Amino acid sequence: MSRWALGVDLGGTAVKVAVIDEKGGVLDHERHPTHADAGPEGIIGHIASLGFAMYDRFRDRLGEKLFAGIGLGAPGAVDSRRGILSYPPNLPGWEQYPLKSRLQRVLADDYSLHCSLILENDANIAACGEAVFGAGREFDDFMMITLGTGVGGGIILNRRLYRGSCGTAGEIGYMTVDYRGKSVHAGVRGTVESLIGKKSIVTLGLEIYRAKALQASSEEFHGRQLCDLSPRTLEKAAKHGDPLAIETWNKVGAVLGVGLAGVVSLMDIRKFVIGGGISAVGELIFSPAFEQMKASTLPSMHEGMDIVPASLGNRAGVFGAAALCFALIE
Amino acid sequence: MSRWALGVDLGGTAVKVAVIDEKGGVLDHERHPTHADAGPEGIIGHIASLGFAMYDRFRDRLGEKLFAGIGLGAPGAVDSRRGILSYPPNLPGWEQYPLKSRLQRVLADDYSLHCSLILENDANIAACGEAVFGAGREFDDFMMITLGTGVGGGIILNRRLYRGSCGTAGEIGYMTVDYRGKSVHAGVRGTVESLIGKKSIVTLGLEIYRAKALQASSEEFHGRQLCDLSPRTLEKAAKHGDPLAIETWNKVGAVLGVGLAGVVSLMDIRKFVIGGGISAVGELIFSPAFEQMKASTLPSMHEGMDIVPASLGNRAGVFGAAALCFALIE
Repeated sequence: MSRWALGVDLGGTAVKVAVIDEKGGVLDHERHPTHADAGPEGIIGHIASLGFAMYDRFRDRLGEKLFAGIGLGAPGAVDSRRGILSYPPNLPGWEQYPLKSRLQRVLADDYSLHCSLILENDANIAACGEAVFGAGREFDDFMMITLGTGVGGGIILNRRLYRGSCGTAGEIGYMTVDYRGKSVHAGVRGTVESLIGKKSIVTLGLEIYRAKALQASSEEFHGRQLCDLSPRTLEKAAKHGDPLAIETWNKVGAVLGVGLAGVVSLMDIRKFVIGGGISAVGELIFSPAFEQMKASTLPSMHEGMDIVPASLGNRAGVFGAAALCFALIE
Repeated sequence: MSRWALGVDLGGTAVKVAVIDEKGGVLDHERHPTHADAGPEGIIGHIASLGFAMYDRFRDRLGEKLFAGIGLGAPGAVDSRRGILSYPPNLPGWEQYPLKSRLQRVLADDYSLHCSLILENDANIAACGEAVFGAGREFDDFMMITLGTGVGGGIILNRRLYRGSCGTAGEIGYMTVDYRGKSVHAGVRGTVESLIGKKSIVTLGLEIYRAKALQASSEEFHGRQLCDLSPRTLEKAAKHGDPLAIETWNKVGAVLGVGLAGVVSLMDIRKFVIGGGISAVGELIFSPAFEQMKASTLPSMHEGMDIVPASLGNRAGVFGAAALCFALIE
């Protein structure tokens, strides 16, 4: 019999819960709304209830003694040693919250479930998932980048999660690549996320289409109005050969490439695993990102540089949370 | 009796050689011209000769058996495991050279000196020096930044040197902070070094003075012509309250701060030790750098951020090289 764990991935809009065994088998997987406005205690109660229900469905079949515990990924700054979540974006009212001890207390008091619980940053658990079960398996050192609403990152060094001094490492989205630019995100000017977060990609696309409105046949492209412009429509248009959509993705890829080049120069990490919803556009981003990464680094650093797509999709987080429970990565 | 080692710091213009004991005592210290045009074998012969002469002067007094070996810092990409130096800037004709094995061979053949030899990047040995004997002693994790002709860096994580996948980590000078800017260094646009390397500081100062030529009393400041503008004269002028010189250092500090903020966001390193010739201006740079580092990072990352001056001056390299020989750091 294999050990099993619950992987939980808490996001601003959805909570994902999965039952995963030590070999990476997914025995169950659910996605629920977060109800972010319920505040810390509401969300903790919600996670406890969802987690326990799933645990309860499997404990007889898989064996209570083989249950390795719960791994929980959360957005924001996570002090995994002390179990404290600080200032999660998109989760109002948290500030600094002892998420780990509170969740353990609720599980114990309300459900008599006493188990180990590992709390980690959501981008970090995604990196762990790809490291143990996904596209990062072949790399000793790599950085996982998540392109979505925001731009997140998790760093694996020597097959271990690199957390930094206070647990906030990997925030490539906050690295500045355009310090004199006009884009600002979370109060910081010219960051990668301010330039290629989901909303900024749409803004960039609009700018490019509007600047060339005549070419784009009176503000339409492939039958859509510009007000419908989204990463999805930009992807479709680019795949149909629309030059303005391709130009948009080239610029997105170039900014990503500048950010990756910074990682190469500073950390000498040369392998990148790219996931998150936006990464579905694939080579439209990867190819210009790779070219820009080369252009923005010394030739002596080019050897071994690679960008590969993540392979676990939006389940990387729950996989990584479970992998931490099994101590397949630490 | 204490163990002793030779610390050697090979630069484009000078080779420094020192005899250092395990407690950080400097028993001798010399500085010689590099003769960079002599090429790899010429320089290796030169280092062997200088190193052996110093070894020979001390071996009876300090004891051959207590000699821990030679630590050698060199500019460029260093593969310390294989002992290969690649593309050292300011040293023509090297490309990729097996510096370690060649130097050991010359020492053995020409001087009958058989000893262990550690080869490491020059910014990395400076970081090791500050970590073991200098301003980094109090920090588990920090980054040493060297501001001089170029902008270099070495990273200490958990009191060990962080080298990266291929030994080139720490190159903060090549991080891009202004990807659309016009400054270029070593083929890469908008890097920290392109903006605040020694020459760029002078260029920046000239721009600021020329833009405000009237204020600066017809291209003079403190009795000097603008053609004499240098980091040294800019420092003097700023310390005499010259607003344009202060503005220059403020801008230099701000760019440094943006670079440091990238290190904070990506690596969650919050302590910085700043050395190199330019760092002598002290708070003229440190203070704007610290303010900009705060402005370019999330508030949740501000705790514990600190910038301190290096304490070993231009001897950090030979100290670090010796510290590696004693295995006081690895």
